[in-house]
Amino acid sequence: MPNTSGELAHAAPFNGDDKDAVYKAILTRRDVRSQFLPREIPDDVLNRLLMAAHHAPSVGFMQPWNFIFIKAAETRNRISDAFAKANAEAAELFSDKRKTLYSTLKLEGIKQSPINLCITCDRERGGPVVLGRTHNRDTDLYSTVCAVQNLMLAARAEGIGAGWVSIFNDADIREILALPEHVVPVAYLCLGYVEELFQKPELEVKGWRNRLDLQTLVFHDRWGEKDGEQV
Amino acid sequence: MPNTSGELAHAAPFNGDDKDAVYKAILTRRDVRSQFLPREIPDDVLNRLLMAAHHAPSVGFMQPWNFIFIKAAETRNRISDAFAKANAEAAELFSDKRKTLYSTLKLEGIKQSPINLCITCDRERGGPVVLGRTHNRDTDLYSTVCAVQNLMLAARAEGIGAGWVSIFNDADIREILALPEHVVPVAYLCLGYVEELFQKPELEVKGWRNRLDLQTLVFHDRWGEKDGEQV
Repeated sequence: MPNTSGELAHAAPFNGDDKDAVYKAILTRRDVRSQFLPREIPDDVLNRLLMAAHHAPSVGFMQPWNFIFIKAAETRNRISDAFAKANAEAAELFSDKRKTLYSTLKLEGIKQSPINLCITCDRERGGPVVLGRTHNRDTDLYSTVCAVQNLMLAARAEGIGAGWVSIFNDADIREILALPEHVVPVAYLCLGYVEELFQKPELEVKGWRNRLDLQTLVFHDRWGEKDGEQV
Repeated sequence: MPNTSGELAHAAPFNGDDKDAVYKAILTRRDVRSQFLPREIPDDVLNRLLMAAHHAPSVGFMQPWNFIFIKAAETRNRISDAFAKANAEAAELFSDKRKTLYSTLKLEGIKQSPINLCITCDRERGGPVVLGRTHNRDTDLYSTVCAVQNLMLAARAEGIGAGWVSIFNDADIREILALPEHVVPVAYLCLGYVEELFQKPELEVKGWRNRLDLQTLVFHDRWGEKDGEQV
Protein backbone atom coordinates (compact mmCIF):
# COMPACT_ATOMS: atom_id res chain seq x y z
CA MET A 1 0.00 0.00 0.00
CA PRO A 2 1.23 3.52 -0.73
CA ASN A 3 2.69 5.16 2.35
CA THR A 4 0.78 8.41 2.73
CA SER A 5 3.32 9.83 5.18
CA GLY A 6 5.73 10.06 2.28
CA GLU A 7 3.71 12.36 0.05
CA LEU A 8 4.90 15.44 -1.79
CA ALA A 9 5.90 18.41 0.34
CA HIS A 10 7.25 21.87 -0.33
CA ALA A 11 11.00 21.76 -1.07
CA ALA A 12 12.76 25.11 -1.25
CA PRO A 13 16.33 25.87 -2.27
CA PHE A 14 18.64 26.01 0.76
CA ASN A 15 19.38 29.43 2.28
CA GLY A 16 22.81 30.91 1.56
CA ASP A 17 24.56 29.53 4.63
CA ASP A 18 23.19 26.04 4.15
CA LYS A 19 24.07 26.05 0.47
CA ASP A 20 27.61 27.17 1.35
CA ALA A 21 27.90 24.30 3.84
CA VAL A 22 27.03 21.72 1.17
CA TYR A 23 29.60 23.19 -1.23
CA LYS A 24 32.16 23.38 1.59
CA ALA A 25 31.78 19.64 2.24
CA ILE A 26 32.16 18.92 -1.47
CA LEU A 27 35.12 21.27 -2.06
CA THR A 28 37.16 20.62 1.09
CA ARG A 29 36.77 16.81 1.26
CA ARG A 30 40.12 15.11 0.72
CA ASP A 31 41.22 11.54 0.36
CA VAL A 32 43.24 11.00 3.55
CA ARG A 33 46.22 8.69 3.97
CA SER A 34 48.52 10.23 6.59
CA GLN A 35 46.56 12.65 8.78
CA PHE A 36 44.54 10.17 10.86
CA LEU A 37 44.42 10.71 14.62
CA PRO A 38 44.17 7.59 16.80
CA ARG A 39 41.01 8.80 18.63
CA GLU A 40 38.12 6.32 18.34
CA ILE A 41 35.02 7.38 16.42
CA PRO A 42 31.97 7.08 18.75
CA ASP A 43 29.21 4.68 17.70
CA ASP A 44 26.61 7.43 17.29
CA VAL A 45 28.88 9.22 14.81
CA LEU A 46 29.54 6.01 12.88
CA ASN A 47 25.78 5.44 12.78
CA ARG A 48 25.21 8.89 11.30
CA LEU A 49 27.75 8.12 8.57
CA LEU A 50 25.97 4.85 7.79
CA MET A 51 22.61 6.63 7.73
CA ALA A 52 24.02 9.08 5.18
CA ALA A 53 25.22 6.18 3.04
CA HIS A 54 21.91 4.32 3.39
CA HIS A 55 20.05 7.36 2.02
CA ALA A 56 21.92 7.33 -1.27
CA PRO A 57 19.86 6.88 -4.42
CA SER A 58 19.70 3.26 -5.57
CA VAL A 59 18.45 1.71 -8.77
CA GLY A 60 14.91 0.38 -8.24
CA PHE A 61 15.36 1.28 -4.52
CA MET A 62 17.53 -1.88 -4.45
CA GLN A 63 19.78 -0.66 -1.59
CA PRO A 64 22.43 -3.21 -2.60
CA TRP A 65 24.99 -2.14 -0.01
CA ASN A 66 26.42 -3.77 3.13
CA PHE A 67 28.86 -2.21 5.58
CA ILE A 68 31.66 -4.28 7.10
CA PHE A 69 33.62 -2.52 9.84
CA ILE A 70 37.14 -3.86 10.23
CA LYS A 71 38.81 -3.34 13.58
CA ALA A 72 40.44 -6.64 14.62
CA ALA A 73 44.25 -6.27 14.49
CA GLU A 74 44.71 -9.64 12.80
CA THR A 75 42.26 -8.79 10.03
CA ARG A 76 43.85 -5.39 9.44
CA ASN A 77 47.31 -6.92 9.34
CA ARG A 78 46.14 -9.26 6.59
CA ILE A 79 44.51 -6.40 4.67
CA SER A 80 47.69 -4.36 5.05
CA ASP A 81 49.77 -7.26 3.71
CA ALA A 82 47.38 -7.63 0.75
CA PHE A 83 47.82 -3.93 -0.01
CA ALA A 84 51.63 -4.16 0.24
CA LYS A 85 51.72 -7.06 -2.21
CA ALA A 86 49.45 -5.33 -4.74
CA ASN A 87 51.25 -2.02 -4.34
CA ALA A 88 54.60 -3.63 -5.14
CA GLU A 89 53.02 -5.07 -8.29
CA ALA A 90 51.59 -1.66 -9.14
CA ALA A 91 54.95 0.14 -8.76
CA GLU A 92 56.46 -2.08 -11.45
CA LEU A 93 53.93 -0.80 -13.99
CA PHE A 94 55.27 2.77 -13.99
CA SER A 95 58.25 3.98 -15.98
CA ASP A 96 61.43 4.90 -14.08
CA LYS A 97 60.77 8.53 -13.18
CA ARG A 98 57.15 7.94 -12.22
CA LYS A 99 58.15 4.78 -10.31
CA THR A 100 60.42 6.81 -8.04
CA LEU A 101 57.66 9.33 -7.28
CA TYR A 102 55.10 6.53 -6.89
CA SER A 103 57.23 4.83 -4.26
CA THR A 104 57.30 8.01 -2.16
CA LEU A 105 53.49 8.31 -2.06
CA LYS A 106 51.62 6.95 0.94
CA LEU A 107 48.46 5.45 -0.48
CA GLU A 108 46.67 3.98 2.56
CA GLY A 109 46.13 4.36 6.30
CA ILE A 110 44.88 0.85 7.07
CA LYS A 111 46.64 0.44 10.42
CA GLN A 112 47.05 4.13 11.29
CA SER A 113 43.31 4.92 11.18
CA PRO A 114 41.18 3.71 14.12
CA ILE A 115 38.67 1.85 11.96
CA ASN A 116 38.26 0.59 8.39
CA LEU A 117 35.02 0.10 6.50
CA CYS A 118 34.38 -2.03 3.44
CA ILE A 119 31.24 -1.08 1.49
CA THR A 120 30.01 -3.90 -0.70
CA CYS A 121 27.39 -4.44 -3.43
CA ASP A 122 25.12 -7.52 -3.27
CA ARG A 123 24.38 -8.12 -6.94
CA GLU A 124 21.49 -10.48 -6.20
CA ARG A 125 19.56 -8.23 -3.84
CA GLY A 126 16.04 -7.57 -5.08
CA GLY A 127 15.91 -10.71 -7.20
CA PRO A 128 16.67 -11.35 -10.87
CA VAL A 129 14.76 -8.35 -12.29
CA VAL A 130 15.35 -4.96 -10.68
CA LEU A 131 13.55 -1.84 -11.91
CA GLY A 132 15.99 0.40 -13.78
CA ARG A 133 18.68 -2.29 -13.91
CA THR A 134 17.19 -4.16 -16.84
CA HIS A 135 19.44 -2.56 -19.47
CA ASN A 136 22.57 -1.68 -17.50
CA ARG A 137 23.61 -4.37 -15.03
CA ASP A 138 26.23 -2.10 -13.45
CA THR A 139 23.73 0.35 -12.01
CA ASP A 140 23.80 -1.55 -8.69
CA LEU A 141 27.54 -0.86 -8.45
CA TYR A 142 26.84 2.79 -9.26
CA SER A 143 24.24 2.94 -6.46
CA THR A 144 26.81 1.60 -4.02
CA VAL A 145 29.29 4.29 -5.05
CA CYS A 146 26.63 6.95 -4.36
CA ALA A 147 26.45 5.54 -0.83
CA VAL A 148 30.23 5.76 -0.52
CA GLN A 149 30.25 9.40 -1.64
CA ASN A 150 27.43 10.32 0.76
CA LEU A 151 29.43 8.75 3.58
CA MET A 152 32.63 10.59 2.65
CA LEU A 153 30.84 13.96 2.57
CA ALA A 154 29.11 13.32 5.91
CA ALA A 155 32.51 12.32 7.30
CA ARG A 156 34.00 15.64 6.19
CA ALA A 157 31.23 17.51 8.05
CA GLU A 158 31.97 15.43 11.18
CA GLY A 159 35.69 16.24 11.04
CA ILE A 160 36.50 12.70 9.94
CA GLY A 161 38.81 11.89 7.07
CA ALA A 162 38.21 9.01 4.69
CA GLY A 163 40.81 7.33 2.52
CA TRP A 164 39.65 5.05 -0.28
CA VAL A 165 42.16 2.22 -0.86
CA SER A 166 41.80 0.52 -4.23
CA ILE A 167 45.14 -1.24 -4.66
CA PHE A 168 44.21 -4.83 -3.80
CA ASN A 169 43.84 -8.09 -5.63
CA ASP A 170 40.12 -8.73 -5.51
CA ALA A 171 40.66 -12.35 -4.42
CA ASP A 172 42.59 -11.27 -1.30
CA ILE A 173 39.83 -8.97 -0.04
CA ARG A 174 37.19 -11.60 -0.79
CA GLU A 175 39.07 -14.23 1.19
CA ILE A 176 39.95 -12.04 4.18
CA LEU A 177 36.40 -10.68 4.54
CA ALA A 178 34.72 -14.00 3.58
CA LEU A 179 32.61 -12.36 0.88
CA PRO A 180 30.10 -14.54 -0.98
CA GLU A 181 30.62 -14.84 -4.74
CA HIS A 182 27.72 -12.49 -5.58
CA VAL A 183 29.03 -9.68 -3.36
CA VAL A 184 31.48 -7.12 -4.80
CA PRO A 185 33.83 -5.10 -2.54
CA VAL A 186 33.26 -1.64 -4.03
CA ALA A 187 35.15 0.56 -1.58
CA TYR A 188 37.66 -0.10 1.20
CA LEU A 189 37.82 3.01 3.40
CA CYS A 190 40.14 4.04 6.23
CA LEU A 191 38.30 6.35 8.65
CA GLY A 192 39.54 8.58 11.44
CA TYR A 193 39.40 12.07 12.87
CA VAL A 194 41.73 14.59 11.28
CA GLU A 195 42.87 18.03 12.37
CA GLU A 196 44.50 18.94 9.09
CA LEU A 197 43.68 18.35 5.45
CA PHE A 198 45.46 19.24 2.23
CA GLN A 199 44.00 22.34 0.61
CA LYS A 200 44.24 20.65 -2.77
CA PRO A 201 44.19 16.94 -3.67
CA GLU A 202 47.36 15.33 -2.32
CA LEU A 203 48.28 13.94 -5.75
CA GLU A 204 48.17 17.50 -7.12
CA VAL A 205 50.26 18.85 -4.23
CA LYS A 206 52.82 16.09 -4.72
CA GLY A 207 53.15 16.83 -8.43
CA TRP A 208 51.54 13.63 -9.72
CA ARG A 209 48.79 15.20 -11.85
CA ASN A 210 47.07 18.59 -12.29
CA ARG A 211 43.41 19.51 -12.15
CA LEU A 212 41.89 19.64 -15.63
CA ASP A 213 40.24 22.82 -16.91
CA LEU A 214 36.54 22.17 -16.30
CA GLN A 215 35.39 24.05 -19.40
CA THR A 216 37.33 21.69 -21.68
CA LEU A 217 35.21 18.82 -20.32
CA VAL A 218 31.82 20.32 -21.20
CA PHE A 219 29.99 19.58 -24.47
CA HIS A 220 26.58 20.44 -25.89
CA ASP A 221 24.11 17.99 -27.44
CA ARG A 222 26.82 15.59 -28.62
CA TRP A 223 30.38 14.53 -27.85
CA GLY A 224 32.96 17.16 -28.89
CA GLU A 225 30.44 19.95 -29.58
CA LYS A 226 31.33 23.26 -27.90
CA ASP A 227 28.40 25.66 -27.66
CA GLY A 228 27.17 24.87 -31.13
CA GLU A 229 30.62 24.68 -32.75
CA GLN A 230 32.39 21.41 -33.45
CA VAL A 231 35.71 21.19 -31.63
CA MET B 1 56.92 20.68 -8.64
CA PRO B 2 54.86 20.51 -5.47
CA ASN B 3 52.28 23.29 -5.30
CA THR B 4 52.94 25.00 -2.00
CA SER B 5 49.56 26.79 -2.03
CA GLY B 6 47.97 23.39 -1.54
CA GLU B 7 49.64 22.48 1.73
CA LEU B 8 48.04 21.10 4.86
CA ALA B 9 45.73 23.44 6.72
CA HIS B 10 43.57 23.19 9.83
CA ALA B 11 40.32 21.35 9.09
CA ALA B 12 37.71 21.41 11.85
CA PRO B 13 34.41 19.55 12.04
CA PHE B 14 31.53 21.70 10.73
CA ASN B 15 29.46 23.65 13.26
CA GLY B 16 26.01 22.27 14.07
CA ASP B 17 24.09 24.27 11.46
CA ASP B 18 26.54 23.46 8.68
CA LYS B 19 26.56 19.78 9.62
CA ASP B 20 22.75 19.76 9.57
CA ALA B 21 22.79 21.33 6.09
CA VAL B 22 24.99 18.54 4.72
CA TYR B 23 22.72 15.88 6.21
CA LYS B 24 19.64 17.75 4.95
CA ALA B 25 20.97 17.62 1.38
CA ILE B 26 21.69 13.91 1.75
CA LEU B 27 18.39 12.99 3.42
CA THR B 28 15.98 15.14 1.39
CA ARG B 29 17.46 14.56 -2.08
CA ARG B 30 14.99 12.67 -4.27
CA ASP B 31 15.15 11.17 -7.71
CA VAL B 32 12.71 13.40 -9.64
CA ARG B 33 10.56 12.36 -12.59
CA SER B 34 7.36 14.44 -12.48
CA GLN B 35 7.94 17.60 -10.44
CA PHE B 36 10.09 19.58 -12.90
CA LEU B 37 9.18 23.22 -13.51
CA PRO B 38 9.86 24.60 -17.01
CA ARG B 39 12.00 27.51 -15.72
CA GLU B 40 15.49 27.58 -17.26
CA ILE B 41 18.47 26.98 -14.99
CA PRO B 42 20.85 29.99 -15.27
CA ASP B 43 24.37 29.31 -16.54
CA ASP B 44 26.03 30.35 -13.28
CA VAL B 45 23.96 27.78 -11.39
CA LEU B 46 24.77 25.05 -13.92
CA ASN B 47 28.44 25.97 -13.57
CA ARG B 48 28.25 25.56 -9.78
CA LEU B 49 26.76 22.08 -10.27
CA LEU B 50 29.59 21.17 -12.64
CA MET B 51 32.17 22.53 -10.22
CA ALA B 52 30.70 20.29 -7.50
CA ALA B 53 30.96 17.28 -9.82
CA HIS B 54 34.50 18.20 -10.89
CA HIS B 55 35.60 18.18 -7.22
CA ALA B 56 34.64 14.56 -6.69
CA PRO B 57 37.42 12.18 -5.69
CA SER B 58 38.92 10.34 -8.64
CA VAL B 59 41.27 7.41 -8.83
CA GLY B 60 44.83 8.67 -9.40
CA PHE B 61 43.29 12.18 -9.80
CA MET B 62 42.23 10.87 -13.24
CA GLN B 63 39.11 13.10 -13.50
CA PRO B 64 37.69 10.78 -16.16
CA TRP B 65 34.38 12.66 -16.55
CA ASN B 66 32.85 14.75 -19.31
CA PHE B 67 29.56 16.64 -19.18
CA ILE B 68 27.25 16.73 -22.20
CA PHE B 69 24.27 19.07 -21.85
CA ILE B 70 21.33 18.05 -24.01
CA LYS B 71 18.87 20.78 -24.94
CA ALA B 72 18.11 20.50 -28.67
CA ALA B 73 14.53 19.29 -29.16
CA GLU B 74 15.51 16.85 -31.86
CA THR B 75 18.14 15.19 -29.68
CA ARG B 76 15.78 14.95 -26.71
CA ASN B 77 13.06 13.45 -28.91
CA ARG B 78 15.47 10.73 -29.96
CA ILE B 79 16.57 10.11 -26.35
CA SER B 80 12.92 9.95 -25.32
CA ASP B 81 12.17 7.42 -28.07
CA ALA B 82 15.17 5.33 -26.97
CA PHE B 83 13.82 5.33 -23.41
CA ALA B 84 10.30 4.34 -24.57
CA LYS B 85 11.66 1.40 -26.55
CA ALA B 86 13.82 0.14 -23.66
CA ASN B 87 11.06 0.71 -21.12
CA ALA B 88 8.62 -1.42 -23.13
CA GLU B 89 11.25 -4.19 -23.16
CA ALA B 90 11.72 -3.76 -19.42
CA ALA B 91 7.99 -4.02 -18.62
CA GLU B 92 7.88 -7.46 -20.22
CA LEU B 93 10.43 -8.76 -17.70
CA PHE B 94 8.11 -8.37 -14.69
CA SER B 95 5.44 -10.83 -13.63
CA ASP B 96 1.78 -9.83 -14.08
CA LYS B 97 1.09 -7.97 -10.86
CA ARG B 98 4.39 -6.11 -10.87
CA LYS B 99 3.99 -5.39 -14.58
CA THR B 100 0.74 -3.51 -13.91
CA LEU B 101 2.35 -1.39 -11.20
CA TYR B 102 5.49 -0.88 -13.32
CA SER B 103 3.42 0.52 -16.17
CA THR B 104 1.90 3.17 -13.87
CA LEU B 105 5.32 4.49 -12.76
CA LYS B 106 6.77 7.52 -14.50
CA LEU B 107 10.49 6.83 -14.76
CA GLU B 108 11.88 9.84 -16.64
CA GLY B 109 11.40 13.56 -17.28
CA ILE B 110 13.46 13.86 -20.47
CA LYS B 111 11.21 16.33 -22.27
CA GLN B 112 9.52 17.86 -19.22
CA SER B 113 12.75 19.06 -17.60
CA PRO B 114 14.40 22.15 -19.11
CA ILE B 115 17.79 20.50 -19.60
CA ASN B 116 19.37 17.03 -19.58
CA LEU B 117 22.96 16.14 -18.73
CA CYS B 118 24.89 13.02 -19.62
CA ILE B 119 27.95 12.38 -17.43
CA THR B 120 30.45 10.09 -19.10
CA CYS B 121 33.66 8.24 -18.19
CA ASP B 122 36.65 8.37 -20.54
CA ARG B 123 38.37 5.05 -19.83
CA GLU B 124 41.59 6.11 -21.58
CA ARG B 125 42.16 9.38 -19.76
CA GLY B 126 45.47 9.44 -17.97
CA GLY B 127 47.04 6.81 -20.23
CA PRO B 128 47.38 3.05 -19.87
CA VAL B 129 48.56 2.98 -16.23
CA VAL B 130 46.62 5.06 -13.71
CA LEU B 131 47.61 5.19 -10.04
CA GLY B 132 45.11 3.22 -7.97
CA ARG B 133 43.44 1.68 -11.04
CA THR B 134 46.08 -1.01 -11.54
CA HIS B 135 44.12 -3.76 -9.78
CA ASN B 136 40.50 -2.70 -10.28
CA ARG B 137 39.79 -1.33 -13.75
CA ASP B 138 36.31 -0.15 -12.73
CA THR B 139 37.55 2.50 -10.31
CA ASP B 140 37.30 5.11 -13.09
CA LEU B 141 33.57 4.37 -13.39
CA TYR B 142 33.31 4.66 -9.61
CA SER B 143 35.03 8.07 -9.71
CA THR B 144 32.50 9.24 -12.28
CA VAL B 145 29.62 8.14 -10.05
CA CYS B 146 31.12 10.18 -7.18
CA ALA B 147 30.90 13.19 -9.51
CA VAL B 148 27.26 12.39 -10.26
CA GLN B 149 26.39 12.17 -6.58
CA ASN B 150 28.18 15.46 -5.80
CA LEU B 151 26.17 17.11 -8.56
CA MET B 152 22.86 15.70 -7.32
CA LEU B 153 23.51 16.92 -3.76
CA ALA B 154 24.53 20.38 -4.96
CA ALA B 155 21.37 20.43 -7.09
CA ARG B 156 19.24 19.69 -4.01
CA ALA B 157 20.80 22.67 -2.22
CA GLU B 158 20.04 24.87 -5.27
CA GLY B 159 16.38 23.81 -5.33
CA ILE B 160 16.96 21.74 -8.46
CA GLY B 161 15.73 18.19 -8.86
CA ALA B 162 17.71 15.53 -10.68
CA GLY B 163 16.31 12.34 -12.16
CA TRP B 164 18.72 9.59 -13.17
CA VAL B 165 17.39 7.65 -16.18
CA SER B 166 19.01 4.25 -16.65
CA ILE B 167 16.55 2.43 -18.93
CA PHE B 168 18.29 2.71 -22.28
CA ASN B 169 20.04 0.39 -24.65
CA ASP B 170 23.66 1.48 -24.44
CA ALA B 171 24.01 1.51 -28.25
CA ASP B 172 21.18 4.05 -28.64
CA ILE B 173 22.75 6.59 -26.25
CA ARG B 174 26.15 6.09 -27.86
CA GLU B 175 24.77 6.76 -31.32
CA ILE B 176 22.60 9.76 -30.39
CA LEU B 177 25.40 11.47 -28.42
CA ALA B 178 28.17 10.34 -30.82
CA LEU B 179 30.25 8.85 -28.00
CA PRO B 180 33.66 7.39 -28.88
CA GLU B 181 34.14 3.71 -28.14
CA HIS B 182 36.29 4.32 -25.05
CA VAL B 183 33.72 6.61 -23.41
CA VAL B 184 31.00 5.12 -21.18
CA PRO B 185 27.70 6.95 -20.54
CA VAL B 186 27.52 6.54 -16.75
CA ALA B 187 24.52 8.73 -15.89
CA TYR B 188 21.78 10.39 -17.92
CA LEU B 189 20.18 13.09 -15.74
CA CYS B 190 17.08 15.23 -16.17
CA LEU B 191 17.53 18.56 -14.35
CA GLY B 192 15.06 21.28 -13.41
CA TYR B 193 13.80 23.44 -10.59
CA VAL B 194 11.23 21.83 -8.30
CA GLU B 195 8.89 23.28 -5.71
CA GLU B 196 7.87 19.93 -4.25
CA LEU B 197 9.64 16.68 -3.52
CA PHE B 198 8.47 13.36 -2.13
CA GLN B 199 9.23 13.03 1.57
CA LYS B 200 10.32 9.44 0.97
CA PRO B 201 11.70 7.79 -2.17
CA GLU B 202 8.94 7.71 -4.80
CA LEU B 203 9.29 3.93 -5.25
CA GLU B 204 8.63 3.50 -1.52
CA VAL B 205 5.63 5.86 -1.63
CA LYS B 206 4.20 4.00 -4.62
CA GLY B 207 4.53 0.63 -2.87
CA TRP B 208 7.28 -0.81 -5.08
CA ARG B 209 9.83 -1.59 -2.36
CA ASN B 210 10.50 -0.70 1.30
CA ARG B 211 13.58 0.74 2.94
CA LEU B 212 15.74 -1.99 4.47
CA ASP B 213 16.59 -1.95 8.17
CA LEU B 214 20.06 -0.41 8.24
CA GLN B 215 21.27 -2.50 11.17
CA THR B 216 20.71 -5.75 9.22
CA LEU B 217 23.24 -4.49 6.65
CA VAL B 218 26.13 -3.93 9.09
CA PHE B 219 28.78 -6.56 9.80
CA HIS B 220 32.00 -6.64 11.81
CA ASP B 221 35.38 -7.89 10.57
CA ARG B 222 33.89 -10.34 8.07
CA TRP B 223 30.73 -10.95 6.05
CA GLY B 224 27.80 -12.11 8.22
CA GLU B 225 29.43 -11.34 11.58
CA LYS B 226 27.24 -9.29 13.92
CA ASP B 227 29.16 -7.60 16.75
CA GLY B 228 31.38 -10.59 17.32
CA GLU B 229 28.66 -13.21 16.88
CA GLN B 230 28.12 -15.16 13.69
CA VAL B 231 24.67 -14.53 12.20
